[in-house]
Amino acid sequence: MRYRHPEPEQIRVDGVLSALGHPVRLAAVRVLDEGGVHNCGSVLNVLGITAKSTMTHHWRVLREGGVIFQEPSGRENLLRLRRSDLDARYPGLLDAILSGAATDDATG
Amino acid sequence: MRYRHPEPEQIRVDGVLSALGHPVRLAAVRVLDEGGVHNCGSVLNVLGITAKSTMTHHWRVLREGGVIFQEPSGRENLLRLRRSDLDARYPGLLDAILSGAATDDATG
Repeated sequence: MRYRHPEPEQIRVDGVLSALGHPVRLAAVRVLDEGGVHNCGSVLNVLGITAKSTMTHHWRVLREGGVIFQEPSGRENLLRLRRSDLDARYPGLLDAILSGAATDDATG
Repeated sequence: MRYRHPEPEQIRVDGVLSALGHPVRLAAVRVLDEGGVHNCGSVLNVLGITAKSTMTHHWRVLREGGVIFQEPSGRENLLRLRRSDLDARYPGLLDAILSGAATDDATG
């Protein structure tokens, strides 16, 4: 099975914002922003999340919003941030969001 | 009755994103971004929305997310975008979001 992803021109900013407007999804994207391909399990480990089923929903929201690529690989899923697509369509948006999350961390 | 608003340092980026991650709320904020104080009715007119009760919910989400100030005035509510608070805490975020909405308009 392959997952469906929106084409770059099908991405909508309200979909990106609602996808990232959740603390768990925002935290997951911050992990993915370190670059490269991650598998679900490794992201959950970093986040300290054990409820894989809940995360399945979050990955879907991020994928359908155009924020991540998700591809099955054996019994795992590989995840990658769509940074170039997002930066091309919405210049500065992802950086401002990730900087904002860091600001929130710093101010408790 | 006065509404409660988060202090600038209580604003969280995921709250801002989820508040703006809805097409009606994003459209309302684009109207408010024209500047100054608006009343609910005038924003609804611009958006072509007649269901005032639904909008009450949307104003609350925007207010609690720290995106707008909402103050009662007689039988109306006055609304104002918290642009300076948002720009100070999350530089570039609101501009990137509003530019993104314009990009979406332009690409259908």
